[in-house]
Amino acid sequence: MSNVTRRREEVFRLIGSCADRPGIVAKVACYIAARGANIIEAGQHQDHESGVFFMRYEVMLAEGDSEEKFRAGFIAVAEELGMEWWLSSALRKKRVAVMVSRHGHCLADLLHRWKFGDLPCDIVCVISNHTSLRELVEWNGVVFHHVPVPTDTPGRECAFQQISRLLEEADVDVVVLARYMQILPGWFCEKWPNRIINIHHSFLPSFVGANPYRQAAERGVKLVGATCHYVTAVLDGGPIIEQDVVRVRHNDCFTDIVRLGKDVEKSVLSRGLLYHLEDRVVVHRNKTILFY
Amino acid sequence: MSNVTRRREEVFRLIGSCADRPGIVAKVACYIAARGANIIEAGQHQDHESGVFFMRYEVMLAEGDSEEKFRAGFIAVAEELGMEWWLSSALRKKRVAVMVSRHGHCLADLLHRWKFGDLPCDIVCVISNHTSLRELVEWNGVVFHHVPVPTDTPGRECAFQQISRLLEEADVDVVVLARYMQILPGWFCEKWPNRIINIHHSFLPSFVGANPYRQAAERGVKLVGATCHYVTAVLDGGPIIEQDVVRVRHNDCFTDIVRLGKDVEKSVLSRGLLYHLEDRVVVHRNKTILFY
Amino acid sequence: MSNVTRRREEVFRLIGSCADRPGIVAKVACYIAARGANIIEAGQHQDHESGVFFMRYEVMLAEGDSEEKFRAGFIAVAEELGMEWWLSSALRKKRVAVMVSRHGHCLADLLHRWKFGDLPCDIVCVISNHTSLRELVEWNGVVFHHVPVPTDTPGRECAFQQISRLLEEADVDVVVLARYMQILPGWFCEKWPNRIINIHHSFLPSFVGANPYRQAAERGVKLVGATCHYVTAVLDGGPIIEQDVVRVRHNDCFTDIVRLGKDVEKSVLSRGLLYHLEDRVVVHRNKTILFY
Amino acid sequence: MSNVTRRREEVFRLIGSCADRPGIVAKVACYIAARGANIIEAGQHQDHESGVFFMRYEVMLAEGDSEEKFRAGFIAVAEELGMEWWLSSALRKKRVAVMVSRHGHCLADLLHRWKFGDLPCDIVCVISNHTSLRELVEWNGVVFHHVPVPTDTPGRECAFQQISRLLEEADVDVVVLARYMQILPGWFCEKWPNRIINIHHSFLPSFVGANPYRQAAERGVKLVGATCHYVTAVLDGGPIIEQDVVRVRHNDCFTDIVRLGKDVEKSVLSRGLLYHLEDRVVVHRNKTILFY
Repeated sequence: MSNVTRRREEVFRLIGSCADRPGIVAKVACYIAARGANIIEAGQHQDHESGVFFMRYEVMLAEGDSEEKFRAGFIAVAEELGMEWWLSSALRKKRVAVMVSRHGHCLADLLHRWKFGDLPCDIVCVISNHTSLRELVEWNGVVFHHVPVPTDTPGRECAFQQISRLLEEADVDVVVLARYMQILPGWFCEKWPNRIINIHHSFLPSFVGANPYRQAAERGVKLVGATCHYVTAVLDGGPIIEQDVVRVRHNDCFTDIVRLGKDVEKSVLSRGLLYHLEDRVVVHRNKTILFY
Repeated sequence: MSNVTRRREEVFRLIGSCADRPGIVAKVACYIAARGANIIEAGQHQDHESGVFFMRYEVMLAEGDSEEKFRAGFIAVAEELGMEWWLSSALRKKRVAVMVSRHGHCLADLLHRWKFGDLPCDIVCVISNHTSLRELVEWNGVVFHHVPVPTDTPGRECAFQQISRLLEEADVDVVVLARYMQILPGWFCEKWPNRIINIHHSFLPSFVGANPYRQAAERGVKLVGATCHYVTAVLDGGPIIEQDVVRVRHNDCFTDIVRLGKDVEKSVLSRGLLYHLEDRVVVHRNKTILFY
Repeated sequence: MSNVTRRREEVFRLIGSCADRPGIVAKVACYIAARGANIIEAGQHQDHESGVFFMRYEVMLAEGDSEEKFRAGFIAVAEELGMEWWLSSALRKKRVAVMVSRHGHCLADLLHRWKFGDLPCDIVCVISNHTSLRELVEWNGVVFHHVPVPTDTPGRECAFQQISRLLEEADVDVVVLARYMQILPGWFCEKWPNRIINIHHSFLPSFVGANPYRQAAERGVKLVGATCHYVTAVLDGGPIIEQDVVRVRHNDCFTDIVRLGKDVEKSVLSRGLLYHLEDRVVVHRNKTILFY
Repeated sequence: MSNVTRRREEVFRLIGSCADRPGIVAKVACYIAARGANIIEAGQHQDHESGVFFMRYEVMLAEGDSEEKFRAGFIAVAEELGMEWWLSSALRKKRVAVMVSRHGHCLADLLHRWKFGDLPCDIVCVISNHTSLRELVEWNGVVFHHVPVPTDTPGRECAFQQISRLLEEADVDVVVLARYMQILPGWFCEKWPNRIINIHHSFLPSFVGANPYRQAAERGVKLVGATCHYVTAVLDGGPIIEQDVVRVRHNDCFTDIVRLGKDVEKSVLSRGLLYHLEDRVVVHRNKTILFY
């Protein structure tokens, strides 16, 4: 499914969507074939309610062809189809910033996967409102920014302006909230649409907001979960990328639930992020289409 | 775990709860040992918040001993401990009534498990507000009652009075709502506390109320679930016995979700019911303790 | 994923494989577009080791077009690509025969799914070496054949000749071994290649052969599983279509393991069969490609 | 379930086994009650084939009581019952050595859980036949020993003698093989019976020996798994502590399978080790009883 380890030279991902009608695949495939490129993975989806067609192709360009030429030539095809699209090189790693508070398990997990070659991205910085994870971050050779977030409104605003500048300076493609226990301002969410990924420690839409494990323990659920989603201005309401659950028992105390839940958080976040990094996620009407 | 197939002669389940303190197990175990009975399965739990102790013992009585004698002798032990308790013979099958509307998958599943010997109970009748499942029920040799439920309040009240009488006449121990699409009156719920078992087709507390699969499809969740719980006067709010989930994908249309969900409903309901039939479930503060 | 419930008029599945090279998708998609047909689902796969390309398209024909014309026209396309292929109408239900011994849980499950509209096929007969399930089968309106299988070689041979004739007379497309506890002769397996589907009650390749639950209990595994696979002349060695597992515990006795395993058998078999019925399974080198 | 986070002062685990007969629980519980201790968790199991009784109690001693006194007093009880037993203080952390080759994912995972307080043990050293993980280990403040293992028999023998000495000097309670790609000598396995824990990257007994992921890819299984087990002289044949699986798809290439499998390895190993650290595992006839 993933191409974490396939050779990536000249592999491009072409993702697009347009109104559904006969002939779309033929047009796109003919363009690809005319350039001598090979389709190495293909996904498509029709949303029957909205009548929208979605596609994702992984193509290997012919020798001598280039991203620029491929892109330039596709403009006319896309125009004819009324297609919104993007082209993404598997070679160009996305630049990732991680935001974190005190809980380090997701951050540590991401750093390890990245070090061991299982997350094809560049982790360019970590931003935290605390300093407790600085040592871990810097030992991994990643820049650490401490940006305290005051509780008063002007102070918060100021902090997020600073974070926003840091993200811009680092030229990040994706922001990962790896248990960042602060609610982001609306303007901040809208600045990186479908590019801020959060891990929420419940099976959404159950237990929105604060302390979901506590809520889960109080309701007496038999499974606890985690949800990886894009952040929108609606708290815990953005498009869901990935979810999973783990069984808990009546004799699991609150701390056990937290411990079991952490494992789910880590795997759900890393899977969701990997899908995003490989351009497998398309958002449509607050839902995600996952090409895997 | 289960004793579906163990020889059941003389096997009794002793379930109790009392304020926690040292010596409870010793007192109970000494009583059991003094009668020459053997403990063949034991479970216990402390709720640390409320300081309540819970226990479930399966005991095999000595030759010549009897339920009546065991019970009579235990009264003094329980009094000393301030214990609420019940004793249940594995030989005496619980009497089950199933209530159902039009969707027959859970009912059919229960009937099959019962026929194949995997549900140790007597299914004594099926009550439905429709007639479409009559043939299936009667072919299985079970009495079928058709009780239409009008939409007007007096009509509904009258229908549930009738159902209540039918349940009493059939001397049922457990009522299973196997996709019964009617909200029960409060007095009805309270008449059989912790004895009415519902299957809700969502992972509660997500998607309370009507059409949970539709709600799930609209939210774009990546897993759909089912919840087996005791019915209380709070809609979908009773103590949860069992839950499970299944993965859905963006290309699973609403009908696929329903089909996938049905399998989870069936297995969650049958597991939850089996736990109840084997006296493995104890309710405490709107949560369940499951001795398995 | 499934199209159990989509309207099926004019929906065809085009499945093909050929040596991989650029331009295959373009050729096929252009042919489809030229006929005015719409692709409503597409899957493709490259086997990198063997260099073989596989595809599955669901197409909705244009008004006025027909299966015969589509098929006739595709011959030239396929020839040019050196493609092996088949075209299958979603309207034409596959004819299924079920073979069973004494254990009725898988059979009952299939019959129910079929009755409730969740298995798009015609179950045309059930063949058993016992008579205990006759009543269940006939109540469901399905023909039941009792073919005893003697233990001596000539007797067995004779029995399977008779079964073979019954299958031919019933014009079956698929044979499902729903816990048929007899080893099929080699010639029988080869007569319906990739069309005999077995459910084996273990997570293959663990516990090949007889009594896998007993083997599992003896090895002390923590999960037991089931495997749905195509039957070949190699015992339990054919291409795997679907697998799943369920957790068992040290206090689950052998009978509990059997009971838990049955649920997995039922769901794995019904999923595997559904994939086959919807032409989602392609066999390559003793493995399956699953387009879902 | 776990008591990772409960206060541990004075909490002891009493694990024992003896021939089953009425009165065992009474004798043990009376002893505990007579000391004024409170049972805070209890588990018991009967193996019906062998007629052996197993128990695990967590007890909180009364003020003024001590481990020594409790132990001394229990000797007579155990003698009367013919019980093998051990008493283990939750306060006394087990001393763990990790052995590893080149694959660092399990090691890194263990180190993180340990650092974040989710593994109640002391990791006292890491022994490797390579040096590539030295930096990771030492950054975590753990002693790293490089012991190359030559391929010739005398060289190997010598290496394992050296490892054995290191383990003795470090006074380790448990040895964890966190992907240690060397087969241990028989004498080495027997020196720490039920105290060497291995993670095997397959769902045993499938794919014993080398390269299980490769074997899994070749067989075309739909799930890959991992098994945590005690090491015996029989390769991959020791008592299984924990297992789990993850779904793979036909388009998951070998590297994807490895990546997906790693996650299962990590969680299965950490769960299995946690059970051992909390004295929840009892071995009986090459199987494990798990008190959780």
